[in-house]
Amino acid sequence: MRTAGDYAQDNAERFRTELHEWLRIPSISTDANYAAECRRAADWVADNLNGIGMEAEVIPTKRHPLVYAEWLGAGPDAKTVLIYGHYDVQPAVKEDGWATEPFEPIEREGKMWGRGTTDDKGQLFAHIKAVESLLKTEGKLPVNVKFIIEGEEESGGENIEKYVHEHPEKLAANVCVISDGSMARVEQPVIVYALRGIVPLEVTVTGPKQDLHSGMFGGSVHNPLQALAEIIARLHKEDGTVAVPGFYDDVRELSEEERTALAKTPYTPEDWQADTGAPEPWGEADFAIHERIGARPTLEINGMAGGYWGNGIKAIVPEKAWAKITCRLVADQDPAKIVQLVKDYIESITPSTVKVTFKSTVTGTAAAQVDMDTPMMQAAIEAYKKGWGAEPVFKREGGSIPIVSDFLGVLKQPVILMGFGLNTDNLHGPNEHLRIDMFHKGINTSVQFLREVAVL
Amino acid sequence: MRTAGDYAQDNAERFRTELHEWLRIPSISTDANYAAECRRAADWVADNLNGIGMEAEVIPTKRHPLVYAEWLGAGPDAKTVLIYGHYDVQPAVKEDGWATEPFEPIEREGKMWGRGTTDDKGQLFAHIKAVESLLKTEGKLPVNVKFIIEGEEESGGENIEKYVHEHPEKLAANVCVISDGSMARVEQPVIVYALRGIVPLEVTVTGPKQDLHSGMFGGSVHNPLQALAEIIARLHKEDGTVAVPGFYDDVRELSEEERTALAKTPYTPEDWQADTGAPEPWGEADFAIHERIGARPTLEINGMAGGYWGNGIKAIVPEKAWAKITCRLVADQDPAKIVQLVKDYIESITPSTVKVTFKSTVTGTAAAQVDMDTPMMQAAIEAYKKGWGAEPVFKREGGSIPIVSDFLGVLKQPVILMGFGLNTDNLHGPNEHLRIDMFHKGINTSVQFLREVAVL
Ligand SMILES: [Zn+2]
Ligand SMILES: [Zn+2]
Repeated sequence: MRTAGDYAQDNAERFRTELHEWLRIPSISTDANYAAECRRAADWVADNLNGIGMEAEVIPTKRHPLVYAEWLGAGPDAKTVLIYGHYDVQPAVKEDGWATEPFEPIEREGKMWGRGTTDDKGQLFAHIKAVESLLKTEGKLPVNVKFIIEGEEESGGENIEKYVHEHPEKLAANVCVISDGSMARVEQPVIVYALRGIVPLEVTVTGPKQDLHSGMFGGSVHNPLQALAEIIARLHKEDGTVAVPGFYDDVRELSEEERTALAKTPYTPEDWQADTGAPEPWGEADFAIHERIGARPTLEINGMAGGYWGNGIKAIVPEKAWAKITCRLVADQDPAKIVQLVKDYIESITPSTVKVTFKSTVTGTAAAQVDMDTPMMQAAIEAYKKGWGAEPVFKREGGSIPIVSDFLGVLKQPVILMGFGLNTDNLHGPNEHLRIDMFHKGINTSVQFLREVAVL
Repeated sequence: MRTAGDYAQDNAERFRTELHEWLRIPSISTDANYAAECRRAADWVADNLNGIGMEAEVIPTKRHPLVYAEWLGAGPDAKTVLIYGHYDVQPAVKEDGWATEPFEPIEREGKMWGRGTTDDKGQLFAHIKAVESLLKTEGKLPVNVKFIIEGEEESGGENIEKYVHEHPEKLAANVCVISDGSMARVEQPVIVYALRGIVPLEVTVTGPKQDLHSGMFGGSVHNPLQALAEIIARLHKEDGTVAVPGFYDDVRELSEEERTALAKTPYTPEDWQADTGAPEPWGEADFAIHERIGARPTLEINGMAGGYWGNGIKAIVPEKAWAKITCRLVADQDPAKIVQLVKDYIESITPSTVKVTFKSTVTGTAAAQVDMDTPMMQAAIEAYKKGWGAEPVFKREGGSIPIVSDFLGVLKQPVILMGFGLNTDNLHGPNEHLRIDMFHKGINTSVQFLREVAVL
């Protein structure tokens, strides 16, 4: 009997030719001039999904459309897998340093070059072709499969967020797979099982009613920049921990099992030094650098300003000073609660010589974490072993992917970050590419994953 | 015999008509388009000085010319008085809120309205007309008189600074008089006997080699904005004093006599509140508000910036952060020494997780202070009593006037700040004006001052 793997191998070149066609559509979501191209890219992938036997629809939004597709032939008692990806891409022009035209994909040196190859058309297309390979050889899938594909990942993503919250039944699934990530070496696949959340807060300290002449008033007025610096200096303790009372109360601590698993791919001080160029590491001494980044919440000053910072001297006591803060969060910290704790603490340490106000318009994103030992994670491990040919390692990442938190929060099921790219693929930069062998390994891994889920 | 006072009274209207003519020249020094007008204003006052019997010359500089004039007929054994003023003015257009055209002076409600009336053409012209009144009635002056008039007071003043340092013999005098100031009430003239100095320093804290993604690195890098805030927070102690070791070592302390004299015109918390609009006073508890401003050195953060402060969120660990600092100095603090102390202290408290660098291109201005009991001060008191009709009070001011420090440093003689304006004259704002009675009292006070100096 001819297997899905055989089919995928036989059709490898045709799969890539199709992908080239999709990549030629410059679906740049950040630039309103490319709205029609985004629409074209959505239509293209919907057509492709219909062509392989899924039922696909293009769903209009206030900006770029969503594409939804489903195959529910496995029946209501079977498992359902929801696959997420995005058809929009970062802007690209050849002048940015591309060796080839960014929207004329070509293959050389074992790689496919072009905008969207790794982020995210190529990675997503691996799943689509996995589904095709199963349907064309077996006439059915081992599980129900849904695709939800957005066109605003590179430019806000507010419409998919809305859609996910409004259509939890339509998207209902036992697991959600996202392939929009990367590994360091092709021999070592990585499963990211934890992402930090993020919540912003803007702090403004005001003193005098206007900028004052520092000669006429200096020495009698609490300088708002000084006052803000005094407040900021008290947000951390000497040991690098956040000084806000209650900040760590809900933190899900690292288990010994996790620490051991994470230690398999440590982030060495040498790596850190090369990446940051900073004089020496800083932070919580009880945690390794990769733990500080992946498993610990932070309070970061992203920007601060006040008074005069042009050329020369302007001898003023400024009217006000402000700082932009974001807290990175870990599971199970609640963004709203953390913002409130920070506000309360800042208010409690603000002297009566100045006033403090806050702005926090964005609600923030909770951290996303999936237990390493859930069955779906085990299925992903097996899929990589059989489909990719290597056992994946587990990793935490310090950044935030709002859609992951949305899926976790709404679907209440595990989300698996199953990357098929390399972290040297130049996503967002010139000469973005995807290794051809990784595209095909991705198809095999996706096929295996659907099989593994079916037998859980 | 007809006195200088009689002459001044008889010619009052003509004096003001002449002043109107000068005021009509828009000698705006900050705007290069007005260079010819500055030159016209310089020529005009040189002509006027020549017309009254002084020997005047226009001295070219790299920008706007100086005007020097002298009458040395009292002989080498007599005292010499150097009078300083400036012919340049702040920019002004009617649209800024002027009720009348700023360069078409008019008189109404007992005031002369127009740009330069109080700052500084009007105040300076009172001295010129005092000299005229003496020369035209007595044929001579009781002392030698020199005028040095600049055209860049509102825009840097670097050329007069250079000239004063290069021509100490030409400007040699027993006292220097500056009338470019103000009092709160016409019945209460004020002699400012102390000004603070100022010295700037720019501090930059750098951490990583570039802005970092706070998700990918946050928690492992000492944020330069946080580090700078931590440094700034340690520049003052809890009691409002500057924490830099040695900062107060050379401070000339207030005498009890001074404190008593200054207490006659206190700056009340209510005045302070109305002027600043700040929640409540801050600073050194052992000193009254007017003492904190007038008699105490400060370290002020004039500006600070780093990272992202536009709209929205940019979740970065910034590459660097910087702050602009100025220290206000009192007698006998040395600007260079203070800058060095601040640098040394900041270096000593900077952690090894970041780097700190400094920029201090400007050398700064030392404080200016003239003993209240020097004979020249007594002469000024008598001049106000007889010429103005009221005994002046002594005052310290918190600002810096570089030319005062230059005169003190180079001429090594007292500098008397003998203001003829009101602090409600709107200097630098729209509807600048000078009370007509104060212009004439100024002439009388100047006449008296020359007489008093002669009999010392
Ligand atoms: Zn992506
Ligand atoms: Zn002036």
